[in-house]
This record gives sequence, C-alpha cells and structure tokens, in this order.
Amino acid sequence: MKINQFAHLKVNHQQKINELQKINFLDDNLYSLSLNALYLHFLQCAFIEAQSTSSFEQKLHALLATSNQDLKDYLDNHQLTLEVFYTVAMQLLGFEVNDDFEINHLFEKMDELHLFHHNQLNNAADLIDAWYDLLCTHGKGGRTYLDLLAANGYFKPFWNLPIEQKPLIFNGKTQPVFDTSKLIREVVYVESSLDTDHDGKRDLLKAEIIRPAETNDGLKVPALYTASPYNQGTNDHTADQLMHNVDVPLKHKQPNNNSYEDIEFHEPAVDLPPARQVRGETQTAEETFGHAKAVTLNDYFLARGYAAVYAAGIGTMDSDGERTCGSKEETESTIAIIEWLAGNRRAFTNKTDNIEIKTWWCNGSIAMTGKSYLGTLATAAATTGVDGLKTIISEAAISSWYDYYRDGGLVIAPGGFPGEDADILAEECFSRQKQAGDYLKCKDQFNRDLAEITAGQDRATGDYNSFWDARNYLKDVENIKCDVVMVHGLNDWNVKPRNVYNLYRELDKLPIVKKLFLHQGQHIYINNFQSIDFTDMMNLWLTNKLYGVENHANELLPDVCVQDNSCESTWHSFNGWHTAKPQKHQFGFKNEQLVDHAAAPAVESFNDQLEQATFEKYKKNWNQWRIDLLSDKKNVLNNNRLIFKTEKLQHDIYLQGCPHVTLDVASSVNKGMLSFMLVDFGNAKRLGEVPATLDLKALDAGYQWRFDDLKEFKLGKPTPWKMITKGHINLQNRKHPWKTDELVPKMFYQFELDIQPMFYHLLKGHQLGLVIYSTDMEMTVRGNEDITYSLQLENCELSVDYEELN
Amino acid sequence: MKINQFAHLKVNHQQKINELQKINFLDDNLYSLSLNALYLHFLQCAFIEAQSTSSFEQKLHALLATSNQDLKDYLDNHQLTLEVFYTVAMQLLGFEVNDDFEINHLFEKMDELHLFHHNQLNNAADLIDAWYDLLCTHGKGGRTYLDLLAANGYFKPFWNLPIEQKPLIFNGKTQPVFDTSKLIREVVYVESSLDTDHDGKRDLLKAEIIRPAETNDGLKVPALYTASPYNQGTNDHTADQLMHNVDVPLKHKQPNNNSYEDIEFHEPAVDLPPARQVRGETQTAEETFGHAKAVTLNDYFLARGYAAVYAAGIGTMDSDGERTCGSKEETESTIAIIEWLAGNRRAFTNKTDNIEIKTWWCNGSIAMTGKSYLGTLATAAATTGVDGLKTIISEAAISSWYDYYRDGGLVIAPGGFPGEDADILAEECFSRQKQAGDYLKCKDQFNRDLAEITAGQDRATGDYNSFWDARNYLKDVENIKCDVVMVHGLNDWNVKPRNVYNLYRELDKLPIVKKLFLHQGQHIYINNFQSIDFTDMMNLWLTNKLYGVENHANELLPDVCVQDNSCESTWHSFNGWHTAKPQKHQFGFKNEQLVDHAAAPAVESFNDQLEQATFEKYKKNWNQWRIDLLSDKKNVLNNNRLIFKTEKLQHDIYLQGCPHVTLDVASSVNKGMLSFMLVDFGNAKRLGEVPATLDLKALDAGYQWRFDDLKEFKLGKPTPWKMITKGHINLQNRKHPWKTDELVPKMFYQFELDIQPMFYHLLKGHQLGLVIYSTDMEMTVRGNEDITYSLQLENCELSVDYEELN
Repeated sequence: MKINQFAHLKVNHQQKINELQKINFLDDNLYSLSLNALYLHFLQCAFIEAQSTSSFEQKLHALLATSNQDLKDYLDNHQLTLEVFYTVAMQLLGFEVNDDFEINHLFEKMDELHLFHHNQLNNAADLIDAWYDLLCTHGKGGRTYLDLLAANGYFKPFWNLPIEQKPLIFNGKTQPVFDTSKLIREVVYVESSLDTDHDGKRDLLKAEIIRPAETNDGLKVPALYTASPYNQGTNDHTADQLMHNVDVPLKHKQPNNNSYEDIEFHEPAVDLPPARQVRGETQTAEETFGHAKAVTLNDYFLARGYAAVYAAGIGTMDSDGERTCGSKEETESTIAIIEWLAGNRRAFTNKTDNIEIKTWWCNGSIAMTGKSYLGTLATAAATTGVDGLKTIISEAAISSWYDYYRDGGLVIAPGGFPGEDADILAEECFSRQKQAGDYLKCKDQFNRDLAEITAGQDRATGDYNSFWDARNYLKDVENIKCDVVMVHGLNDWNVKPRNVYNLYRELDKLPIVKKLFLHQGQHIYINNFQSIDFTDMMNLWLTNKLYGVENHANELLPDVCVQDNSCESTWHSFNGWHTAKPQKHQFGFKNEQLVDHAAAPAVESFNDQLEQATFEKYKKNWNQWRIDLLSDKKNVLNNNRLIFKTEKLQHDIYLQGCPHVTLDVASSVNKGMLSFMLVDFGNAKRLGEVPATLDLKALDAGYQWRFDDLKEFKLGKPTPWKMITKGHINLQNRKHPWKTDELVPKMFYQFELDIQPMFYHLLKGHQLGLVIYSTDMEMTVRGNEDITYSLQLENCELSVDYEELN
Repeated sequence: MKINQFAHLKVNHQQKINELQKINFLDDNLYSLSLNALYLHFLQCAFIEAQSTSSFEQKLHALLATSNQDLKDYLDNHQLTLEVFYTVAMQLLGFEVNDDFEINHLFEKMDELHLFHHNQLNNAADLIDAWYDLLCTHGKGGRTYLDLLAANGYFKPFWNLPIEQKPLIFNGKTQPVFDTSKLIREVVYVESSLDTDHDGKRDLLKAEIIRPAETNDGLKVPALYTASPYNQGTNDHTADQLMHNVDVPLKHKQPNNNSYEDIEFHEPAVDLPPARQVRGETQTAEETFGHAKAVTLNDYFLARGYAAVYAAGIGTMDSDGERTCGSKEETESTIAIIEWLAGNRRAFTNKTDNIEIKTWWCNGSIAMTGKSYLGTLATAAATTGVDGLKTIISEAAISSWYDYYRDGGLVIAPGGFPGEDADILAEECFSRQKQAGDYLKCKDQFNRDLAEITAGQDRATGDYNSFWDARNYLKDVENIKCDVVMVHGLNDWNVKPRNVYNLYRELDKLPIVKKLFLHQGQHIYINNFQSIDFTDMMNLWLTNKLYGVENHANELLPDVCVQDNSCESTWHSFNGWHTAKPQKHQFGFKNEQLVDHAAAPAVESFNDQLEQATFEKYKKNWNQWRIDLLSDKKNVLNNNRLIFKTEKLQHDIYLQGCPHVTLDVASSVNKGMLSFMLVDFGNAKRLGEVPATLDLKALDAGYQWRFDDLKEFKLGKPTPWKMITKGHINLQNRKHPWKTDELVPKMFYQFELDIQPMFYHLLKGHQLGLVIYSTDMEMTVRGNEDITYSLQLENCELSVDYEELN
C-alpha cells in the first residue's frame, strides 16, 4: 500500500490559522490553550458524532496513544508528543495498529506509505500546523481526513452559511457545504443550429440540470457538463441484431493512387431552417426529473458548489435529430449545451411554446466530464474552441474514430466487440426509438440515414475515407483553448491508447495546460482508487479553472502521471510520454530471437489457417487463443505465428512511446494482414486486469449522499507473460490508410509501421518479445483462409524507446 | 421474461376509489368527467415531472396509442379503448413497442409475461379499476408503476402529511411518504445480561438507530433490526493468518460408544455482575453516526415508515464482550436489542454515565432482516421466543453450526472457504481489535477464550460434540412464536441447503405462519430481481405483522415458492418442500448405471490418490477438478471416483427432498471418507451461477435515496452437466455424527445417509447421475492418501423422491 497525494497544498502558518478558523476548528480564544487542551479541542470538533463529554471520552479511550496507554489515560497525565500525535493520527486515518503499522516503527511506516508528517510538536503553533495537514492527508479509505469527517456530518452546520461564504475553500479545494437533499432538478430544451432529422425544424436538445438550492438565492455556480449519448437509454437488442459478421474473408482491394486530398472531408453547405420565434421568457423550468444516470465525479462536486448538466444529444430520447456517430453534427449538438450555459444560445422550457429560459444561475464557467463516448464528446467539444468551456476531463476518449473502429486499412473491432461499427453505435444510442409515439415520426428518415452511415464506414476496404476524416478530432486540435486533463488505461483495448497518445502529442504544440494520467486499468474510471488522490486533484483543478481560485493546481498536478505495472500503488511523474533519458534501441530478428544487430539472410514463414474445429473453439474463447498463441509449449498455434524474444534483461527497462516495426514481407495470395503483439515474457505476479474492490460503498460523495466503492489494483498469482501492446496492418495499405497498394502474391515488400503506444516497466530477468501473426480473434475479420506469410528476417527490425533503470 | 407477482392485492371498486383518493388520483369532482378526460387526469397526475400543459402534451406525443397514432393525436379524436389503455400501460411499465411486445399481439404478450389486465373498459368505473391495478402492476424495471412514480417524486408532496395519516397504505402496502433526508441517526448502549469479557461488568452493546423524523412528532414506528457481526468492520488479515491447513491427512479415530446424552450441551450456571445503577433518564441520545453499512431491504422500508436498527453484538467495535461464534451468549446478545426495543431492557446514552434512554418512538413491533450470519442470528433470536419479535426474514441462514462447518463426522468447509472454522469467524468479527485503545484491555482474555473455541470445535475428529450442540438452533425451534420467512439459494454451498430444510421441517410442527423462497442463486439476496416481487411481498408481510394491517399477507404469499432451474424467470408455488404428488424411487447400481432393480453381485473400487503435481493443480483450480471429475472423457480423475447414471429420462421429473444413499463399503485402511454428488447430465442451456445485472442502480428505494441494481438469472451457453446436490460422510460415523465406529481395513460395512436436500427440475432426455468419490477439493481435508474404497454394488441403493411431469 502506498498513498500518492498530489493535491495536498502546502500553505504557511497564517493561512492555516485562517482556514482552520473558516471551518470552525479555531477561534480567537483558543491560542492561549495548553497543548493538550488545544489538541482535545481539535479532537472534540472532529468527533462530531460524540455529542457529550462522556461520549467524547469514550472515543479517546478507543484510541491507542502508547504501547500501554489509551489516549484518554495518556492525556490525563502526560503532554502530547509528536509520536503520540501521529500514532493517533494514523488511527484516525483508518490505519490499524499492528495490522497496518507498528507503534515502534511509526515514522518509517508513514514514510513508506508516503504519508506527510511534521517533525516537531513543541507548542500550539506546531500543533496547528500538524492538525491542518492531518485534515489534508489521505487515509486508508482513499480520502482525506477532512472528507471522512464530512461523511460523518462535519459540514452539516455549514449548509446554512450565507451565500457570500460559498463555495467554501479549504486547502485550495471546495468543500461539501451544500445540502444535496435540496438540489434542484430541471429540464430545458436547447435549440441547436442543426436539423439532423430533416423535419424542417431546428433540433431541440434536452438538457437535465442539477444545481444547488443556493442558486435560487443568487449564488452563481460553474457547470460540470457530461454529454452522454447513453444516458437516456440504449437499444441493446436491436443493435445486437445489426452486428456485422466478422467471420468473413479479408477482401482483395483494387489498388489506387489516392492522396489525402482525394479523400479529405469538406463540410457541405447546409440549408438550415430558421430559428424559433421567442414568445416569452421565464426563469422557471416546467419539467423536472427523478432518477438520472450519474457520473460519480459529478455527484462529488454537487455537494461542493457545482451544477451538473447531462445531455444525450441529437437522436436521443426527448430530443430531436438523429444519431450520426462522431460526425460534425454530433459535435455541434454537444457544444450547443455549452453555448447555452455560457449565455450564447437559446433554450426553451418545452418543445412547443418557445418560452426562453436562460442560465441565470451559472457563472459561465463550464467543464466537461465523463469516460469513453462521454470523454470523446468532451474532446470533440474542446476542438471547437467554444467559449465558456474552461477545461475538459477527458477519460478513455476517442481522438479519431478511425482509431476506434479501424487500423492500417483494416476493420479492427474495439476489444470485446467484434462486429461493432459506427452504424451499430448510432443505432444503439438512437434512444428516440424507445418512445414509440415519437419514433413513428422519425423512423423512416433515420433508417435511410443509417444506411448512409453503413455505406460511409465502408467495411469492405477498411480504408480511411472522408467518412472517417469527418470524424477525426485531431485535425481540429489547434482550435483548443481550454486546459485539458486526459485519463487513459494502458490496458484499454476498447478505446486503444493511440487515441490519447495522438491527442497528447497534438496538444503539446498548444499554449494550454495539459495533464495526463495513464493507469494500469482497461476501460475504467480511476476516481475511486486508494493509491492516488485523483478526485482531490480534480477538485484542485476545477476550483482553479471554474471558480478562478489561485491554488497552484497547474503546478501541483503532475504533467504526466503513470501507474507502474510491476508493483502495487506506485505512480510516477514525468514531463511527457517519456522518462528522463530514454534511448532508441533497434533489434534485428534471428531465429526466434531479437538481437542487437541485423541478422543473416533467412526467410521465416507461417500459415494463418486452422483446422475448422480449432478455429471455432478459439473464436469463442479468446483467452485460450491468447494463451496458446503466446505459449512456448507445443500447440496448434505454434505454426500460426512467429515469435522473437530478446535475451533475459540485465536491468529493468522502462519502455515508452510507439514500438516501430520495419518489415520485408510476402503473402502467398493477393491480400494479407498482419497483427503484432509486444509481450513481456517472464514469470511474475502482475496487477489484476480488473481492480479489486477493497470496500463496498465506502467513499461518500458528501454527507448521506452518494457512495462509491473503494478500489485498487492488486498483484495476483504469477503469470508467464503479459501483452504490452499490439498493432495491425493491411498489407495493401503499406504507406497510408487511405491509399491501396498492389500486392503481388509471393512478392516481398518492405514497409514500416507504428504499433500502439506503451509505457511499460519491464523487469530484469524478463524477455521482451514480438509476436507476429495474422488473424486476431478479438479484433480482425476471421476468414480462416489458407494464406502463408513470409518474412525476410535480415530486413526486419523492431525499434523501441526505453530507459535502463537500476 | 416473466413477471411473477404475488403481492398485488385484488380489492373491490369502492376500496379502489377510496385508496385512489388517498393518494390524490381522485377527488369528488372527477366522477362526472368523460372517459378521456378522466384518463388524461390520471396521466397528468402520473407525469409529475411535467409541470405545464405543454410539457404534459409532449409526454403524450411520445407514447404510441395505435400503430399509426401517438396518444395525444389519438385522444384528440377518439375515445379511449381497452386496447389503447393497455398499449399505453405497457409503455408506462417500461416495455418497448416491437422490442418487448407487438401492438397487434398485446394481450397475448401480457398473458405470456403474467401481467394482470382487465377485459373491459367502457366507462369511468372500468377506467378507475384499470388504473388502480396498473399502479399495482410490476413493469420491466422490477417494480410497480406506483413505485416508479415514487422514484420520480410522486410522494414528495406527501412528506408533510399529518402524522395521523402516516404510514400511508395503498394496496395493502406502506408507501414511501417519508422524507429520507430527514432521518434521525442515533447510538445507544444496551445493557445485556452477559459478561463475556469477564471484566466484572455487564456487556454494553452498541445499537445504531435510524428512524423517521416524524417519530419526534409522536409517530410510533416498528423496527427492522439487523444483527450483523460484520457491520463494525472485520479483521480479514488476522483471520486469514489463522486459517487452518486443510492439506492434512484424515485421522483415524478411536471408536467409542457415545450416545447423544453423553455430549448434550447443558448451560452452565453463570455468576453475573450486578446491573448498572440508573442515574437518570433522557429521551435524547448523545451520539450519532454518519456512514453505516446498510441492508437494502431496510433502506427501502426507511422511506415507508419503519426504523432500522443495526447492532453487531458482543465483541464488536464500541461494544463490550467477546465473539463466541454461534453460542448461547451470542443469541442472548442478539435478543438484548429486541428486549430494549420492546421496552423490556435498559439502554444508556453512553458507556459511563448510566443515563437511561427508552424506545419511546417504537410501536413495540420488531422484525429481523439480513442474510447469512445476519439471517442466522435472526433465526437464533426467534428460537428464544423473545417478546416483541413479530417476524423474521431469515435469508441464507444457518440453523445448526455443525451443518455449516461439519458434516457426518467430517470437517466440511463452507464452499469457497477451506480452512475456515468457528474460531476463525470469531476472530474475523472481533472488531474491538480494530480500536487499539480498547483492544489493550480485552486482548489477553479474548485470546484465552479463542483458544477454548479452537479446542471445542475439535477439528481432529469432526464429531458432533457439546460445543456444536450448544450451537444447534434446531433444538429450540419449539420456542418460536413469531411468523417466519425463509429465503435460501438451492445452489448455496456456503450455507448449505440442509440448514433451511431442517428449519422448515421443524417449523412445520408449530402453529405459526411460515413462508419459504428457494431461488437458483448461491449465497445472495433476491430483493432486486426482475421476475418476482419479493420486496412487495415483504412490504405486504411487514405491513401486516408490524403495523397490524389486515391485508391478506398470510394468504397472498405462497407457502413455498421455488424458482425453476430449467428456464428463466419461472417461479412455482407449492404447499411444502414437495410437488403435488411426489413418489419415492429406488435405484440399484450396475456397472456405470443406475437401474430400477437390485443388481447382481459385483465390487467396484476407486483409489483416492493423485499424482502430486495433478493434486496441486486441482487444489488451486476447483473448477477444473469438478469438470474432470464429472467428465466422460478420459482423464486422471476417471479412476478417482465411481459414476452411475440412469437411462435418458422419458419425462421431465421434479426431484425433491433429500436423496438417500444406502451403501456397502470397505476402506483399504482404518479410516475413510466418502463424498457424493447428484448430477444432472445432459447438454442444455442453464441459468448462470451469478445473476446478470440488467440495469445498474435502477431500483430506487424511495425518492433520491438509495439505489439497487436490477438483476435476473439468465440462461447461458449450453453446458454438459450441473451438480444438483452433494453430501459427505466419515466412514467412522456410520450411525451418528457424535459416535465413532470401528473401521477394520477391507471389511465391508452397510450404512445409509441423507445427502443435502434439493428441488430440481430434471429435463426429459437428461440422465440422473450419482458420483461417489472421496477427497472434495473445496470442502474436505486433502491428505492425498493412498486409500482404496470398494463398494458391494448389490447392496447399494439410491432413493430419491420425484414427480413425473409431462
């Protein structure tokens, strides 16, 4: 266990006094108290659940002060010491004596856990310093001591503070002083500048708003906006029925001489229906809502003085329009909500009366939040440079839809969803279908337009075309004005890491502040982890970006924060997608080895076809397929791939960036595809694929409000290997995904490619391996064809960046 | 999908009118309205989120009335019909047109789904009837339409009803008219008549109370009490370290002539310290609490006019005493809370001042809730006949601790926890250890007493002794005065089905009302299932038992309700642990067959030992072990077991009761153990072991309160077999678990045993199989010894009860 805290702001003594006064731990009469008396005062404030002296003393008896005295007995006879303060502090933070720390090795353990502590406690001033920082320190339960007190009701008396004193900032972060049982929920309909359902009227977009009651008294709050196409429901069943068959042969493609300009997307001129005539204005919404699908991070901020806004966009239940999956229109529909929030667009109270309603309660500062499609739309919105959007927290987001559904001229499924494509996702999210009365009016038009998406995505070639070019947000990154937080799983094979890597590299060219978190998860949120104070960081960040508080968020948050794959709860800070001194290393291929120098001439071949029964088995059991593909042991897949490994490493190395592969390859027929896995070979305990739940519903978003489970990645039983990263290419797209090359059977072709990026700690004694194969059971088409691939080994090379560690 | 509703109370027209008035759907002016106008009135009340005419009309447009008209357009021009009413009703219940039902086959589908509907709708009276029953009907989302409206805020205006009108009963059930943001949380310390930590003072027990604010205004409410030893935290780490080694040989036991009287437990006389002197009385608690581990069923009732009370009992954090795992003292500590709630015992505001606090807010009616250890303590409490306890809802509960940790003279682990035992669980739950200041004072005494538990449980023999006799609640079932609901998983191999079977059979002798639910889950709660209205039934039940409302709960709830294992969402009602006309069937053993008649003389043998590497593999991978054990295919386990199967069945049969096995067996050595599995052989799609989550956080316990996931068992991919039930016996306990028999090597012994009970639908074309083996990787000790077991087949018999179905 380690507690990695970044958002603990170190402030001077006077500021500590001021802030402790603000949250009622100190007042002017307290400075003259003895050390013990002041300490008891602090504790009495903290034990808010004990409402009498006897109850409070009972709490003191439960705490251990020294190896043979409880805190009450100790303080009756002795003066507080530094050791006693932190022995008790550890218990207050949820660490158990003997189980989590030994009383005789207190400070060693605190240092090992990365817990902040002071080194002297001689007078009241020292105690004030230590107490302040204890309130800011994360405990075993994945939150600060102050957040734990808040969960016990510490801030309940603050609910009635005058609005001039809200939000309440402590240690640079907003505190949960808002009564979440009084939140106001309302619905409005934002008029977009779109008519995606071609009904001759501008699409109205439903937005669900949750805002603190204090806004009715004049408090202006920022908005956390989550654009989630899923949150009005999904058409799982019909989408499943449309799923494409991936058990089809790869197609030979007619060569062409396409340049990017040939396929570049140009936005067509659109004849837009006129805006609605405003027939009145009101400050009061006409519609409310009960249960909404919530993002836990938004819930956390609802207790702290922010509004949450949810909108599902065009084509979703209660809105107008159609789903278009990643199109410019979708981006327009996404930012329409921001424009309304910032006062630059109209919304109405319902879909017919044209009574305008403004965001009189909003301070005009907006952030976007959410993961996956939600994070993707945050990225999309940012690339428009829309006013009012101050920052996005973009998690597991797509930066180009080609990198989600395609790769190197191939149809490549998001991991776990073979057969899915842009049209399926459009159908999946077209939740207008769920309201049969409404669906009656838009069904035919949607089906026509869905057929266009199916045609546009062009599963036949897998090429990058104008359909995909229209869905490439990277082209517009230069428009981004807001600061950006990115979060991505290094094991996310749904939205593959290239998406965040490319975005990060484009953002590097801009004068904005950006922060990147790379975790060891798959496609998950990380705001409920024990080992890192991600939620606190987002609090610091948003308090700065949306409330304009100067709290050093830009400096305190690491630029690039990477979770180590080789051990538990370890996070490293870097200045970019690289360690301090990475170097490029080139490997040649020889027999089954990766060697330092170019190897002698040799051709190695493999055939892609399997016996039908075996093929059927692997189609259903990807895990077994992966095990057999990477196994040393003799099995039917031995002849279906080439495998090359380095010697056992003499040092730990930290791999980074995109592995680059140079190849000289022939296919036995006029088509072909290659897949690559970079693999860590070596028996070791590795982090689980899915984080362990340490405690159910243990993280309170406020007081008696919402809960989240506490999680952490734990080392499991030893495994013989782990895939580091992977990649794919169509042999007919050797230069560009938009240009089809000739492929003459049995002729060798030289070309090179980048596979997906990585940030990987490979341990001493392990081997780095490259596996080259063709059909990828989880991602490619699976034609099970008799195709043989041959490599001229002396012309092949693997180039990777890494730094040697000691 | 099928919706099985039991708690929908059918009432007459006048009562419908009265109740609809009570919840504001009707008033005196409405009867003269036209059919359409009354219908629109109902809908307008229901669409509480639409607060203007335009918003409401927008909702009507979203609903489909006929194949080509939405509801608004339809009602503008046509009169409401029965078809339109139910087409719309289905949508209101969450069923989607086309996806869930076809508009042209409406009533067929409703019947198929088991949805209640009326058959005429000609006038306002018909409409009132239909609307009333629609409010009571469960939808796709696993709750009634009225509960769905409640989740949208329907009952928010009822929060301020005068207390004389609370609780509010509709259709026999309490409704969520209590403001859960105003719940009062307080802590008291109940003085027990125990001194389990031997400190010379009666053990004080912490109780956490959550009660509606209305109790402060004079409302008296019943209490749902959950005794959970886990809910002040657990010592997972230290308990793990104490876990017993199961990789030890079975021990030969010295034969004896024990009778039950020799080992019967007699409660020793105890010298109890005097009760505390009361020094004052108050109505106000001095301690509150924030976050508590909650039981979702309790949360649901907190919105409906009940208090929830949590107590962890002796030896848990903030209480006095020690954990004793299943002892009489534990039961005493459990009912102490009930005695206080019913006004028959004292509690204090803290542990030192002796200020008494009474349950002035409680109506004296108490129910107990909870699963596993929690349900066990509910059962334990009921067996004392304690006053005030009106009913228990006992889920997955232990009825005798011998049946949890032992079987037939063997140490048999709860599935998934080899090495666990009573001492481990005592340590696990001794949460006083978590407060180091308190632990200082009780550590030595606890460790001494824990050693006594370790000795008493006697892992060396596995025999039933006075330690286990003291922990057998079945002996005291005759004291039970309250009505009982039992819930158990037919696939629960943690708390094995024998526990509920034995309790059910003992209860059969008493003049109480009892209800039994047998589901297809393992060790789970079932109040969040789509296919059955379990929560509604508990509402009907508790409204009757605790509020004394005459609502036919005793008649409406099925006596025995069993989920069918062969198909989805199907529940059968029976009058006992049997179908209408079960018959006893006896099978003889012949070669690998179960045959109708006794077979010719033949001896079959198997050896229990495995190659060490294989043994180590199976120890870690129980699933693979089970697969290989039951497989027809040649593998290393073929010689480690005997397997006997019937012919393929000509009819479906419904197996029930306890399979009875008669054996004639010899062991090659002077010790031995046998294990049995009754197995359904036949390729079929079967229900998943774990229910699928249909929708996350979709079930609201009230309005903006707590949430639960909607779940259901779904058929998975076909599997070749499923274990129906299992059993174990030590060959030295052929007659009684408390008497050790001689076992001469190679001598044949005849004896018989019941294996665990079942309720299993075995399909036509499948085979019933009995597998006989020795070491059970999940449950027995695993000595991997060279022991050969031989059976005289002509003296062996399997007897099962079943009814043939057509």
